[in-house]
Amino acid sequence: MKKPLILVTNDDGINAPGIRTLIDIVKELGEIVVVAPDSPQSAMGHAITVNDTLQIHKIESDNTQITEYMCSGTPADCVKIAKNEILKVKPDLCVSGINHGANSSINILYSGTMSAAIEAGIEGIPSIGFSLADFSWKADFEQIRPFVKKIIEEVLSNNLPDGVILNVNFPKLKREEIKGIKICRQARAKYQEKFDKRVSPFGKEYYWLSGEFVNEDKGEDTDEWALKNGYISIVPVQFDLTAHHAIQQLNTWNL
Amino acid sequence: MKKPLILVTNDDGINAPGIRTLIDIVKELGEIVVVAPDSPQSAMGHAITVNDTLQIHKIESDNTQITEYMCSGTPADCVKIAKNEILKVKPDLCVSGINHGANSSINILYSGTMSAAIEAGIEGIPSIGFSLADFSWKADFEQIRPFVKKIIEEVLSNNLPDGVILNVNFPKLKREEIKGIKICRQARAKYQEKFDKRVSPFGKEYYWLSGEFVNEDKGEDTDEWALKNGYISIVPVQFDLTAHHAIQQLNTWNL
Repeated sequence: MKKPLILVTNDDGINAPGIRTLIDIVKELGEIVVVAPDSPQSAMGHAITVNDTLQIHKIESDNTQITEYMCSGTPADCVKIAKNEILKVKPDLCVSGINHGANSSINILYSGTMSAAIEAGIEGIPSIGFSLADFSWKADFEQIRPFVKKIIEEVLSNNLPDGVILNVNFPKLKREEIKGIKICRQARAKYQEKFDKRVSPFGKEYYWLSGEFVNEDKGEDTDEWALKNGYISIVPVQFDLTAHHAIQQLNTWNL
Repeated sequence: MKKPLILVTNDDGINAPGIRTLIDIVKELGEIVVVAPDSPQSAMGHAITVNDTLQIHKIESDNTQITEYMCSGTPADCVKIAKNEILKVKPDLCVSGINHGANSSINILYSGTMSAAIEAGIEGIPSIGFSLADFSWKADFEQIRPFVKKIIEEVLSNNLPDGVILNVNFPKLKREEIKGIKICRQARAKYQEKFDKRVSPFGKEYYWLSGEFVNEDKGEDTDEWALKNGYISIVPVQFDLTAHHAIQQLNTWNL
């Protein structure tokens, strides 16, 4: 059987420990092409580069099993240019991450990791975003290796439903403390923002966005609940944002 | 009755003709606060500024009915800083646009206009994004004025369902040619990308993203169908990306 062609990307940049671990996990599973941002792209959402140029740079390596490119663009750009200019064919799978920091709940909207995975999903490529609930550059990805491999193998053998992308988040726990995997819905949570107001050396006011994540969703079927209770969360995600349930109500309006 | 407090934003920047028209339409409907990017932010998706500072600058004006600020950040940043630092209270409505160019179908994912509207929706603010299917800076917004006003008035009097944001797109037509308003679902369309490869004066290759929008969705209940057939499209949008229909299937996997 032909080995699957696997595209690997992320948003923390090509040198992040998270993507290096992911590459190391998938290298046994197929032919690997890495196309990742040349610099960190956290919180880029689904931004794409339309008013500027893109550059890609092939990284020379002795490993003939893995081809790596770094790209000047956003995570979504990486997937677009990988498919169209580098691979020229549709890969069999796209994996994004492993992100340094969780992308559960509403974080999916801001996430560059998930925007890359969703971009691949739009292109009809089976796709998974992986994130570990640990922002540290020194996050311990070793703990979650067997789970990442298992989930990828299941996707390769089961196929994903049409138009569905997986958002996988790992709790920051030791391997033996992880209780298992739960299929979840996205928790309805949000940020209680605080803006830290400061004054520049030149007397101008400026702000830093900060804030606290607040989960008001009491459901036990959410990704937040799973992570908090020692489980790996998998949320199946779609790019049809239509609130289908609201169509009927809006049709009663006097428009 | 107290006039509603209306936040106006966009992604084309505070000086774009589209937002100037929108301000002019809403100024009769409530107390208006404008917080918009100081430069164009098209295709920024739901990016937020986490690794840099934000600046806001109040624009002096003789019009005491309208307060305007320009912000150095993304559209989503504008909504966050407006609510938390400028208004200090939740506005009664957020309107974003009028975008120069359609944000129908999959464009919603890349859209700064809609990311601002969705950000407001996450905060529990009734919210509408408006876009005209004309990329030109000289797009004729006069044609759609009464429709914009009507939609805003309906939202103010009916209230939107919880967690629902409206994505409103206008065809590029004369007022009398517009056939009406349709409540739609998001068409399943995508871009067939092409990358235009060029060489810099210094001999380095670079790319421009371009491509063609391809609608493979034959449904007559989509935003693309409505726009193509002379209707204004309204898609109710949600920020819960869970593919609820896929949960059951994933639960049969051997995870």
